[in-house]
Amino acid sequence: MTHTIAVLPGDGIGHEIVEQAQRVLGALNLDLTMEQAPVGGTAYDQHGHPLPEATLALAKRSNAILFGAVGDWKYDSLPREHRPEQAILGLRKNLGLFANLRPAILYPQLANASSLKPEIVSGLDILIIRELTGDIYFGKPRGVREVQEGEFKGEREGFDTMRYAESEVRRIARVGFESAQKRNKKLCSVDKANVLETSQFWRDIMIDVAKDYPDVELSHMYIDNAAMQLVRAPKEFDVIVTGNIFGDILSDEAAMLTGSIGMLPSASLNASNQGLYEPSHGSAPDIAGKNIANPLATILSAAMLLRYSLNEAAAADRVENAVKAVLEQGLRTADIFEAGTTKVSTSQMGDAVLKAL
Amino acid sequence: MTHTIAVLPGDGIGHEIVEQAQRVLGALNLDLTMEQAPVGGTAYDQHGHPLPEATLALAKRSNAILFGAVGDWKYDSLPREHRPEQAILGLRKNLGLFANLRPAILYPQLANASSLKPEIVSGLDILIIRELTGDIYFGKPRGVREVQEGEFKGEREGFDTMRYAESEVRRIARVGFESAQKRNKKLCSVDKANVLETSQFWRDIMIDVAKDYPDVELSHMYIDNAAMQLVRAPKEFDVIVTGNIFGDILSDEAAMLTGSIGMLPSASLNASNQGLYEPSHGSAPDIAGKNIANPLATILSAAMLLRYSLNEAAAADRVENAVKAVLEQGLRTADIFEAGTTKVSTSQMGDAVLKAL
Ligand SMILES: CC(C)[C@H](C(=O)O)[C@@H](O)C(=O)O
Ligand SMILES: CC(C)[C@H](C(=O)O)[C@@H](O)C(=O)O
Repeated sequence: MTHTIAVLPGDGIGHEIVEQAQRVLGALNLDLTMEQAPVGGTAYDQHGHPLPEATLALAKRSNAILFGAVGDWKYDSLPREHRPEQAILGLRKNLGLFANLRPAILYPQLANASSLKPEIVSGLDILIIRELTGDIYFGKPRGVREVQEGEFKGEREGFDTMRYAESEVRRIARVGFESAQKRNKKLCSVDKANVLETSQFWRDIMIDVAKDYPDVELSHMYIDNAAMQLVRAPKEFDVIVTGNIFGDILSDEAAMLTGSIGMLPSASLNASNQGLYEPSHGSAPDIAGKNIANPLATILSAAMLLRYSLNEAAAADRVENAVKAVLEQGLRTADIFEAGTTKVSTSQMGDAVLKAL
Repeated sequence: MTHTIAVLPGDGIGHEIVEQAQRVLGALNLDLTMEQAPVGGTAYDQHGHPLPEATLALAKRSNAILFGAVGDWKYDSLPREHRPEQAILGLRKNLGLFANLRPAILYPQLANASSLKPEIVSGLDILIIRELTGDIYFGKPRGVREVQEGEFKGEREGFDTMRYAESEVRRIARVGFESAQKRNKKLCSVDKANVLETSQFWRDIMIDVAKDYPDVELSHMYIDNAAMQLVRAPKEFDVIVTGNIFGDILSDEAAMLTGSIGMLPSASLNASNQGLYEPSHGSAPDIAGKNIANPLATILSAAMLLRYSLNEAAAADRVENAVKAVLEQGLRTADIFEAGTTKVSTSQMGDAVLKAL
């Protein structure tokens, strides 16, 4: 049975990096159909909307989405509903992509790239699981209104609603526990239960779901403390599970600990393992079109795509091993270059991975 | 005119560290009256409430509050309204302490303490201004309810309200701009305006208030990016202004960048410069009563108290210089000890600061 992959390169460096990942997917002798569609600012320019209906329809009928990146300064003045990032929020919500897996891995060859001391980060391998379709991202009501009572009566106020329904917490909890079972059996749930009702509710459910996973050790940490501990001793974590907004912050902080965000893939899955796969970095419009961006995060995202949505674990392993091999060969794009290694372009890096396959 | 200082040592190491700060304040030849009252778990044990009425009344009629720390594992199972941290939330709300100033300073003598490379952090000196009485901390409605419609209809959901009224944003913006004027004239406002209505509202007001401070350069950054940039290149920041929950996370992350959170003071001010002053670290119940905790963050908090609430800048300078002197002498409590320095106890560190005054 042929697998359909929606290829959405997006803006900035999106095209260049996705192209290399497509080459890699194409070289694996799998029965894949790749269909491309515009998304983000590019789609707005062409069709007046960052997530055109045809793009959404393609995404829905595909087994997986290979996504580049969206965004460019030039769209900053658009009203929010037309800005590039609405495409990604729209895809998450419409496809129910509730589970975001964000590994933060520091390859031993790149230990120097980190702003942290090598002994603090080398060998880092943590997995952040971020809930992606609930929380304050989509909660209603939200907007600007007139304050009806109290100290600020008569003034305008901006407001949003943080919220999680029970089944939303249960399903992401299960993803957390099952991921922990495949790793070191330690799951840390991050919340702000000392202040937020949503967090206390989240924590109570985590504790309840834990009963089904007696082999996994569940701990809880407040978000402020987690932001600190990631800086102090990131290797003490294994799997972290958290809500949408805290996960947004923590996963980016954790990525930056590695100093090599150009290496980090991500997966966003729904209940039927349909997934969107994208690098953890952004669209980097300043270097777009120069053939210098690092395609490895996108190539590793393609490996996650193979593993999670196509159930092709062997092919995923091949891709991940090829990436390790090119690092071992000393090949580096500009973002991870250091003295003693060989600087290569985006397409040369793609060539090298293909060769290593 | 005599200044009244409410002394609230709290739990854990609170008593030991506050005692040293009191000694320092007492040695300055100022007309001060210090009155002590219980707060946190200690107050709950004695009076059944973490913030007894008498403690709140004392705080209200004082010029400033010198606060130790609250919290202990043994109160974790209490219902939320009786837990120690409610005292601090109650003080903030009842006294209108809306402006939290959190310096993150890395003293050159302690550069090795950081988990970051010395060149990334040495000489770090940033100021985080966190709004402290609005946002999702106090927003209503909040609680657990039955979902009325949509996908999760009939389920329970936990929920909270994020909100900022216009005047709340304006007043913290002014604190931000005025602080920036006294420093490098760069203010970075952190929000999540690409997703949250509250943040877009916040950002619009920041831009409006900026018109009154043409000498300050205002920039905006998303919270996820700020969490990354703090790890990558913290010295690129000068003053950061942000909301309550983002500020909770960022100020702790920034504190940990220094590796010496035992050195970091904080101030929480209201519109009449009444303030609560506390170390940035917690109550550390595991080392309480051992005379090994670092009192310097509390002593430096007392210096902020002198500066902001008592308008005694010269005395504040004296205290801060005395702290620098003891570091220069090589004296270190256990948390910041390294080979080649002299390990001292809590009270010995207090002695040394007194001597250096
Ligand atoms: C672009 C933005 C809406 C998005 C988010 O906040 O989720 C991004 O930061 C991410 O993490 O994918
Ligand atoms: C104890 C807690 C309620 C508090 C907060 O979240 O504000 C603490 O983390 C702080 O930063 O002072």
